[in-house]
Amino acid sequence: MNVLIVYAHPEPRSFNGALKDKATDVLSAAGHEVTVSDLYAMGFDPVTGPDDFIGERADPEFLSIPREQTRAIETETLAPNIVAEQEKLAAADLLILQFPVWWFGMPAIMKGWADRVFARGFAYLPGRKYDTGMFKGKLALVSATTGTSADTYAPDGIDGDILSVFWPIHNGLLRYSGFDVLPPFVAYMPSRMGGDGRNAQLDAYAKRLGEIETTPRLFFHPTEDYGPNERLKPGVLARSGVQRNV
Amino acid sequence: MNVLIVYAHPEPRSFNGALKDKATDVLSAAGHEVTVSDLYAMGFDPVTGPDDFIGERADPEFLSIPREQTRAIETETLAPNIVAEQEKLAAADLLILQFPVWWFGMPAIMKGWADRVFARGFAYLPGRKYDTGMFKGKLALVSATTGTSADTYAPDGIDGDILSVFWPIHNGLLRYSGFDVLPPFVAYMPSRMGGDGRNAQLDAYAKRLGEIETTPRLFFHPTEDYGPNERLKPGVLARSGVQRNV
Repeated sequence: MNVLIVYAHPEPRSFNGALKDKATDVLSAAGHEVTVSDLYAMGFDPVTGPDDFIGERADPEFLSIPREQTRAIETETLAPNIVAEQEKLAAADLLILQFPVWWFGMPAIMKGWADRVFARGFAYLPGRKYDTGMFKGKLALVSATTGTSADTYAPDGIDGDILSVFWPIHNGLLRYSGFDVLPPFVAYMPSRMGGDGRNAQLDAYAKRLGEIETTPRLFFHPTEDYGPNERLKPGVLARSGVQRNV
Repeated sequence: MNVLIVYAHPEPRSFNGALKDKATDVLSAAGHEVTVSDLYAMGFDPVTGPDDFIGERADPEFLSIPREQTRAIETETLAPNIVAEQEKLAAADLLILQFPVWWFGMPAIMKGWADRVFARGFAYLPGRKYDTGMFKGKLALVSATTGTSADTYAPDGIDGDILSVFWPIHNGLLRYSGFDVLPPFVAYMPSRMGGDGRNAQLDAYAKRLGEIETTPRLFFHPTEDYGPNERLKPGVLARSGVQRNV
């Protein structure tokens, strides 16, 4: 299996770095091919803008990002640092996003990796989303650390269910573009752990990585559950844990 | 009232730009002082990292962002481009975030504005979050555009309830740091609208901005609804629309 780990932390010796290294070791030892995009080490520029397009623009006067992305992919004039990431992603069977939760989401450097790499024409097109997404057949895993406790991320916790907090990533980025999505691996408050606690988390992560083939995927409603307006058909009980019947 | 509009779109003539201009006009005409942070025009760097700290580090060997943020604020050695934004935010009674929804969230340039500007010691500290947040008394509004329809963002829509999609922003960024939060203004699929449709949206936005004082805020559970583990106390019915009882 080809694995792409996209990793965002400014400190190489962080616990996020240790999780990235653990995944690399465990998956390599299991015979998988592991590629790491270390966004901070790469100095990855996360800002989507006119420099993403190195050829003739579809419209030089008005910058529509989706339109220019589509054209740049057709004409192979997307910036090389985006194309390089798209090639890694295209080759990957498993995508792992490794990051610290900052303000309930990905650090900007990773959000911008998504904004720029998941370009229209590469990650989605009309009729190609969710069950018919471009990345159908690929698998994804979010591995993250938090600054607050597991209780705060319970469904009745003050921060909200971790699956609700990650919905924009799980459903919005990954499922939208066709991925099957594994339950996230979340290390809560590693900054409060001692060495033993961190080692236990690394061991738990290694165990999870060894069970990927048999771990049930997160549930997302299949296309047939939705009516033509893309809302659940009458009688279909919402059971993603985030959506609800109205 | 002092208003800070943080605006993220790479095309000045975009509909997001028009919404930003409309807010500026309407709020100025009503006697408010409006400041705009046009992140693309400013070339705002959204990447949190060692360059955020221009003085002596708390630990030059290991980069802990929260630790260095706290120290840099105490010693007034946070990078000037962060301090400038913090001063605008400190002076603001109302914060408006104006952005296109990209991959179910803020564009990276705005996410990084949050990552860097909402620094520990400025936006939160132990015991200073949610009801006791640093920005208590301030008001916030998300104004966004989408690439898919209002139906898809219904509670039973394929993209999920817009309030669930925005939970990491509404609860995670804004309420966490003490803001009261207005219901979002969302223009769905402006790219599919003609001029009349867009004008109607701009008018609707102007109307919303004129009603800010009397518009009910989004509901977030108050501190007293939570037990010491920061989960809803037994008997408290979850009613934020995102959380649920377990």
